[in-house]
Amino acid sequence: MTDEQAQVEFSGTRERIRALVDSDRFKNTIMTVIIINAITLGMSTSHTIMDSVGPIIRLVDRLALAIFVVELLLKFYAYRLKFFNSAWNIFDLCVVVIGLLPSGGGMSALRGLRVIRTLRLLSVVPQMRAVVQALLDALPGMGAVIIMISIVFYVFGVMATLMYGNAFDEWFGTLGRSLYSLFQIMTLESWSMGIVRPVMDEFPMAWAFFVPFIVITSFSVLNLFIGLLVNTMQSAVEEETEAEFEKLRDLVRTETDTVDQSVKAMHEELRALRAELANLREGRDG
Amino acid sequence: MTDEQAQVEFSGTRERIRALVDSDRFKNTIMTVIIINAITLGMSTSHTIMDSVGPIIRLVDRLALAIFVVELLLKFYAYRLKFFNSAWNIFDLCVVVIGLLPSGGGMSALRGLRVIRTLRLLSVVPQMRAVVQALLDALPGMGAVIIMISIVFYVFGVMATLMYGNAFDEWFGTLGRSLYSLFQIMTLESWSMGIVRPVMDEFPMAWAFFVPFIVITSFSVLNLFIGLLVNTMQSAVEEETEAEFEKLRDLVRTETDTVDQSVKAMHEELRALRAELANLREGRDG
Amino acid sequence: MTDEQAQVEFSGTRERIRALVDSDRFKNTIMTVIIINAITLGMSTSHTIMDSVGPIIRLVDRLALAIFVVELLLKFYAYRLKFFNSAWNIFDLCVVVIGLLPSGGGMSALRGLRVIRTLRLLSVVPQMRAVVQALLDALPGMGAVIIMISIVFYVFGVMATLMYGNAFDEWFGTLGRSLYSLFQIMTLESWSMGIVRPVMDEFPMAWAFFVPFIVITSFSVLNLFIGLLVNTMQSAVEEETEAEFEKLRDLVRTETDTVDQSVKAMHEELRALRAELANLREGRDG
Amino acid sequence: MTDEQAQVEFSGTRERIRALVDSDRFKNTIMTVIIINAITLGMSTSHTIMDSVGPIIRLVDRLALAIFVVELLLKFYAYRLKFFNSAWNIFDLCVVVIGLLPSGGGMSALRGLRVIRTLRLLSVVPQMRAVVQALLDALPGMGAVIIMISIVFYVFGVMATLMYGNAFDEWFGTLGRSLYSLFQIMTLESWSMGIVRPVMDEFPMAWAFFVPFIVITSFSVLNLFIGLLVNTMQSAVEEETEAEFEKLRDLVRTETDTVDQSVKAMHEELRALRAELANLREGRDG
Repeated sequence: MTDEQAQVEFSGTRERIRALVDSDRFKNTIMTVIIINAITLGMSTSHTIMDSVGPIIRLVDRLALAIFVVELLLKFYAYRLKFFNSAWNIFDLCVVVIGLLPSGGGMSALRGLRVIRTLRLLSVVPQMRAVVQALLDALPGMGAVIIMISIVFYVFGVMATLMYGNAFDEWFGTLGRSLYSLFQIMTLESWSMGIVRPVMDEFPMAWAFFVPFIVITSFSVLNLFIGLLVNTMQSAVEEETEAEFEKLRDLVRTETDTVDQSVKAMHEELRALRAELANLREGRDG
Repeated sequence: MTDEQAQVEFSGTRERIRALVDSDRFKNTIMTVIIINAITLGMSTSHTIMDSVGPIIRLVDRLALAIFVVELLLKFYAYRLKFFNSAWNIFDLCVVVIGLLPSGGGMSALRGLRVIRTLRLLSVVPQMRAVVQALLDALPGMGAVIIMISIVFYVFGVMATLMYGNAFDEWFGTLGRSLYSLFQIMTLESWSMGIVRPVMDEFPMAWAFFVPFIVITSFSVLNLFIGLLVNTMQSAVEEETEAEFEKLRDLVRTETDTVDQSVKAMHEELRALRAELANLREGRDG
Repeated sequence: MTDEQAQVEFSGTRERIRALVDSDRFKNTIMTVIIINAITLGMSTSHTIMDSVGPIIRLVDRLALAIFVVELLLKFYAYRLKFFNSAWNIFDLCVVVIGLLPSGGGMSALRGLRVIRTLRLLSVVPQMRAVVQALLDALPGMGAVIIMISIVFYVFGVMATLMYGNAFDEWFGTLGRSLYSLFQIMTLESWSMGIVRPVMDEFPMAWAFFVPFIVITSFSVLNLFIGLLVNTMQSAVEEETEAEFEKLRDLVRTETDTVDQSVKAMHEELRALRAELANLREGRDG
Repeated sequence: MTDEQAQVEFSGTRERIRALVDSDRFKNTIMTVIIINAITLGMSTSHTIMDSVGPIIRLVDRLALAIFVVELLLKFYAYRLKFFNSAWNIFDLCVVVIGLLPSGGGMSALRGLRVIRTLRLLSVVPQMRAVVQALLDALPGMGAVIIMISIVFYVFGVMATLMYGNAFDEWFGTLGRSLYSLFQIMTLESWSMGIVRPVMDEFPMAWAFFVPFIVITSFSVLNLFIGLLVNTMQSAVEEETEAEFEKLRDLVRTETDTVDQSVKAMHEELRALRAELANLREGRDG
């Protein structure tokens, strides 16, 4: 067997595998595995179930993980580096790799992370993919406002840490704690009874810091939302009216063309008449 | 009396009963019974009223229930299996059947369920029916996003149970408790002071689990809302502009037809002229 | 002086007073009185201010009230029963009458009500009047959904009273308390940590009552909002596009008229030509 | 050197400095200084960092402040009083001046204010400037509703102080406290469990004061939002459809002009024919 033949055969294998991983049957199988795995992961939260059928559930979980690894290897073999062109593949890779991490020892809190694998349903079912894509598509248009809110958060976070950090260490002791507390305040959760009233007992003017913060962030989030809404609506209406206008333009063209042809037909008639008259005159003069 | 005659007479009875249950007077009577029953059900919440006129109220309640049973039997007799074609009939059937369940003994908590009968107001008054229908019509368009939110809930629920279940049994001990707690967190109720801050005392990185959850679900619900809004608006605007465009198209057609007819009238004139000239020439030549 | 003369003179007085109460100067005076009264009412909340200049403030308050009474009497004299045609007049009458009620004795809590008089700013300043009018105009379109929400509230209120009233008297002891608690739950305030979790300690299935309630009312309020938004937007866009379409229709008419006139001018020419030819033939034949 | 020469030279300097402060390199340098300053301000919140490199961070802070002062002096020199025409310059001036205030002594809480300097990022980066401008542009359209909400707040604030001030000094003791508490209630934070239920223990009818307040302010804020949304949407759609209508109008004009020219060309032909006929007749008659 020559090198070239090997190459061709190799290519052929790649082609067949590519056809396999793109086939509906393959995708449905993977989806079924994800759903079964989601159910066993859900069952693994129950102590009673784990006590009776724990080993089976652990087996199913490992089997599912093995299938996902094989799936990704096949996809990687079929597409080579083009595999990384799709953000969905990278997402799949990440959630599968998380499942491969050792979860024993002090990392027990992390073992919950392998459940994130179930989110692959969002990447495998096309309808879900469309919804997620629509959510992500909305992000760029929100970029400037998100950066603005981030700057406002940072500034208010540093200020809160410097001003209230010493007196209220739990809430504003570090920049991180301040940012978390400000996020809580932005969601309006216990902002007054829980945080601002206690702070005001020490710093009576604290309302002049927190109330503007609430007003500014609420107003910014509102504008974020309005921007998003107007964009969505505009593109929806645009398509709609664009079609209507096209129809109307076609009608205007057709109708005026009809008139124009009537005019032109008459023009022909007129020319014919003129030619006849010319003939007539020539006949008479001749 | 022959069988056929019986059949005809029987059909006649069915027809008459169908006319009866569809009559406005019948519907208004039922509506009055529902309202009276709603009032007595409201009165039955007061111990003082029940102590003085309890037997009367209980009687009215049983009478109303009897009337509803008769009403449904008549409707079922009139429409036979077509009765089940209307979702409203099935709804009526369910709420009446709930009222027939025994409410004594350990089921005392369930006796409140018969109040659900008052919701028949929504199915009997046509305007209410339209509002409910509009709400339900909005559901299918939200399907994909609702499934997505459900998957996100399930995944975060399983993760929360596995990661925080042992330490915080009351909030995340089982999958059910986790889902309830996550719903509470999604509504932003006491999410930080009540739940996440206590969890962070044990797991300092817990914010990295809950803050993304809040952002993702808020953003998804927002998109749900925007999708709903754009759909409603689009169909409202569509109808509007569709009518305007139709009007405009009619105008374009009428106006160009007018011009076209002017042209054609002139063409006729021109043809007549040509014919005259032809005659003239013939007359001269002849 | 005859009766008729008296009648005419009387009418003249009425006319002059009507002109007076409708004059800008009169309105501005009243507005100034309202604003001064608003300031003194605000000052009356401070014990230190009341201790030093309390009698002056009380005097200003009584003076303002007297001026409002005279104003309304003049208006009533000028317009007689037509006075009641304007909802704004009735509003003014109500808030002034509230100020005339005795506020001593056990009614001390009610003396705050006379501050409501300051809301007359909303009825006197035309811009404010427009805003309030716009808010009120939005109400009828919301009627059906508001009735639906009321029915849902009533049904859930009665159910909550019957099911949880005995165990949680403070929250669900009477129908009124239940409705208040459900309103609190609808606003999502402490619904879980404050109310539903304690209730679930006694009735583990209580979530199946409260979570659907939250979902249904949130969804209904959302639809209320969407309906309002679509209506407002539609009428705003309608006006806009209506004008654009009118402009376009005018253009179509003008342009086709231009063409039609060109055609008709030519038709005239053709007729003239035909007449000449007829003359020619007659001349030749004659 | 004459006075005139000095004047010219002086002007030349001003021109050069104006060119300098408007140059991209200058702006980028300032932006870099702002970002470095923002980072060091963030670092200054950490005690461990301040203990090790505190002097350096304080030095960077003073240096940044010096650079900002020089920048503003240059700008002021270049533009003189026109400097105050731009709201952004005034904003920059304010935040720099705040940084120059003495921060020692009892004012330690105020030293956090110099962090506000980082908000200059919003005024220096053009994209951020556009976002902030868009937010501010939305304000005037909201003016009337904001004034209305302010009046409602003032009236309810005075009423709450008069009615509940004596019994609940912490929440409604002064007009300021009442306004703060009403703001908290408007954001729905702990409104019932935290404030209204305790108040209702003393004044059972208090719900009749607070529930309408919540409904009125929620409804007003909703309308504020709807107004904002409709305005944004309208101007977005307007531009869009305006362009479409312009295109359509152009088409109608072009098409009818084409027909009109066909008609006119024919008219010319007809005139020529008539002229020929006239010639013919003259020739014959002549």
